Amino acid sequence: MPQLSDKGRLMPESPIRKLVPYAEVAKAKGRTVYHLNIGQPDIKTPEVAMEAIRNCQEKVIEYSHSAGNISYRKKLAKMYQNIGIDVNEEEMLITTGGSEAITFALMTCLNPGDEVIIPEPFYANYNGFAVAAGVNVVPVTSSIENDFALPAIEEFEKLIGPKTKAVVICNPNNPTGYLYSKEELNQLRELILKHDLFLFSDEVYREFCYGGEEHFSAMNLEGMDQHVIMMDSVSKRYSECGVRIGALITKNKEVIKTALKFAQARLCPPAFGQIAAEASLETPKEYFEEVYNEYIARRDFVVAALNEMDGVYCPTPKGAFYTVVKLPIDDADKFAQWILEDFEYNNQTVMVAPATGFYATKGLGKNEVRIAYVLKKEDLAKAMVALAEALKVYPGRTR
Amino acid sequence: MPQLSDKGRLMPESPIRKLVPYAEVAKAKGRTVYHLNIGQPDIKTPEVAMEAIRNCQEKVIEYSHSAGNISYRKKLAKMYQNIGIDVNEEEMLITTGGSEAITFALMTCLNPGDEVIIPEPFYANYNGFAVAAGVNVVPVTSSIENDFALPAIEEFEKLIGPKTKAVVICNPNNPTGYLYSKEELNQLRELILKHDLFLFSDEVYREFCYGGEEHFSAMNLEGMDQHVIMMDSVSKRYSECGVRIGALITKNKEVIKTALKFAQARLCPPAFGQIAAEASLETPKEYFEEVYNEYIARRDFVVAALNEMDGVYCPTPKGAFYTVVKLPIDDADKFAQWILEDFEYNNQTVMVAPATGFYATKGLGKNEVRIAYVLKKEDLAKAMVALAEALKVYPGRTR
Ligand SMILES: Cc1ncc(COP(=O)(O)O)c(C=O)c1O
Ligand SMILES: Cc1ncc(COP(=O)(O)O)c(C=O)c1O
Repeated sequence: MPQLSDKGRLMPESPIRKLVPYAEVAKAKGRTVYHLNIGQPDIKTPEVAMEAIRNCQEKVIEYSHSAGNISYRKKLAKMYQNIGIDVNEEEMLITTGGSEAITFALMTCLNPGDEVIIPEPFYANYNGFAVAAGVNVVPVTSSIENDFALPAIEEFEKLIGPKTKAVVICNPNNPTGYLYSKEELNQLRELILKHDLFLFSDEVYREFCYGGEEHFSAMNLEGMDQHVIMMDSVSKRYSECGVRIGALITKNKEVIKTALKFAQARLCPPAFGQIAAEASLETPKEYFEEVYNEYIARRDFVVAALNEMDGVYCPTPKGAFYTVVKLPIDDADKFAQWILEDFEYNNQTVMVAPATGFYATKGLGKNEVRIAYVLKKEDLAKAMVALAEALKVYPGRTR
Repeated sequence: MPQLSDKGRLMPESPIRKLVPYAEVAKAKGRTVYHLNIGQPDIKTPEVAMEAIRNCQEKVIEYSHSAGNISYRKKLAKMYQNIGIDVNEEEMLITTGGSEAITFALMTCLNPGDEVIIPEPFYANYNGFAVAAGVNVVPVTSSIENDFALPAIEEFEKLIGPKTKAVVICNPNNPTGYLYSKEELNQLRELILKHDLFLFSDEVYREFCYGGEEHFSAMNLEGMDQHVIMMDSVSKRYSECGVRIGALITKNKEVIKTALKFAQARLCPPAFGQIAAEASLETPKEYFEEVYNEYIARRDFVVAALNEMDGVYCPTPKGAFYTVVKLPIDDADKFAQWILEDFEYNNQTVMVAPATGFYATKGLGKNEVRIAYVLKKEDLAKAMVALAEALKVYPGRTR
């Protein structure tokens, strides 16, 4: 049999998926498993989107424009303008999820062997996109001691070398829930300009900002038009993960022109997805208010419950729907497996994501897990009870 | 401004898209342009697919399994079994179009710098996928003199070196319409086994085989389970180009396991697309018969019309819906531009794809164009008249 590629070997497996077989065993034993491990919200997709799909009268589902339907791009541009991001329909490519936007950005801007700096812990699939593009991820560590704020700029400076081409941020952050302030972003801005880098800003959780803190888009950093590429997605905004529509957005014309060539090779983004995404722009305000209130309630509940547990520390996330929590445990991977395999409380248990999978630096995150608060409050309540009980009896408890 | 990547620079522009501005000028002058340049069929998407979409009652459009919905994979496997291709639901990944299947195959099996041999002329986007994967395309020339049959195996042998990892075939072929015989495929088989290579078989036009000739899938080559990866798509089969559903299919478990990691990073294929594709498996026989009769009629008409033109040679394509034609012209790119810019007959003209874009060897295809017979017969008739008239007066006519 012919050998497979090095990329294939290097390609990471999802840190969450490794646990799936253990969850299945728990379920096979009749246990209820609360999934705190995934970013799949339980929120309903807006009715306007489903109606547009159900009313689809097309006769031939044709290839769309490789950059996405012009009607959708125009309306999307208007949406951005309404929230103070000044872009037009020529400054964006509609992509197959935010995922594809990240891949296009890496392929367009970085050569194989080039480096991209990313504050860790970070969205684990960035590793996969980097491997596919042949690019090296250089982590700069953010710490739970600072609630995962942006690492000091000197820490970035130390890592910048001749191969450094870009910095990736995710704002609000998956997995930490941290929301970068305007001041932090301006510090990054100086760094980017000083070293003539790209800033890839993954803003797919933009609508999930809590506690009155405003989201500041990297697109609005001054004098950064040639440097900033924003990634966006309808997956979280409208609970349309399966729709597979995202966007690559930049004022840099060369980037658009080049990324479009990658987009042309794969022909076009999904047609039905574009119909749903376009219709979703008409989602009533109340939808977002409801979602917002729901998430605030969930967050407040989870954070309080976690911080009440002995030896647990959970920063208060200001955005997205995740939080990285410090637990009094020896090894998050062992713990996440143990709680599925060997634990139950009232025949219930939980699935969490070991934070190790979100760090590129080996050894970090061993006593941290990511918790996604994407369940109804009743379920979150039961999940928190089970987690608290588990921590009491976990053999690898550290104090 | 930071520099873009070499990949971005190397990434080819679509050979067809270069002509779009000239077509727009022609249209702006009020001329009718018949598009013989694209692979977008005008055939209706099956009603069962559209009904499934219009009946979609999902509340939350969630991420699907990264390999695609199990219900779809099971039914798709059955469809293959019905046409004599013995695969099960574990031997396939549902992809975002056949395009993504090709990218996954390249990334999974080849390292950057590795080589893939492809008979030219070939589907131009293979170049794009190869650039994205950092892989080098090595062309082996097929010739209109042999109606684009498989080049002699000795020609392949000459090109095989330490970097050769795979051969790509497209069967039936885009752009030539050639259908490889079982004998030709068995010759390839020996070559593949002798040199321990992969065979990537792009069979997205499988349903379009004319004149009673049977399609022989590379999946059915003996002893090739570890070597063959088939790419498939609903784009052409059901005229669902915008649906963006394809598949990577192989009995090689390591390939599936590794390609799945690439699939997991991008999360999942489109949800609505999978609904449409699954429903399409219930498309009644009559649909295919109608489509088949339509294409046979179009093919026969176009081939006859072309061969009647003075100095023109058109092989009779046995599959797909394209043909590469030899014209008495100096330069296909110039001709394709001229016919849009400077020619009209009864206020009509045509857009053709210069064959140069389908050859990797510079200088080949200069007197050939690809014609897609994806228009109604009345339109094809008018297009053929315009083309014939154009050839009479083209200043670069060679004889
Ligand atoms: C930080 C981040 N970026 C990008 C994505 C990709 O999302 P999609 O491809 O569904 O748009 C996700 C999905 O979870 C994410 O968490
Ligand atoms: C030979 C060939 N392969 C693959 C594709 C990709 O099709 P899709 O990504 O729509 O499945 C095409 C589309 O024209 C094609 O002609």
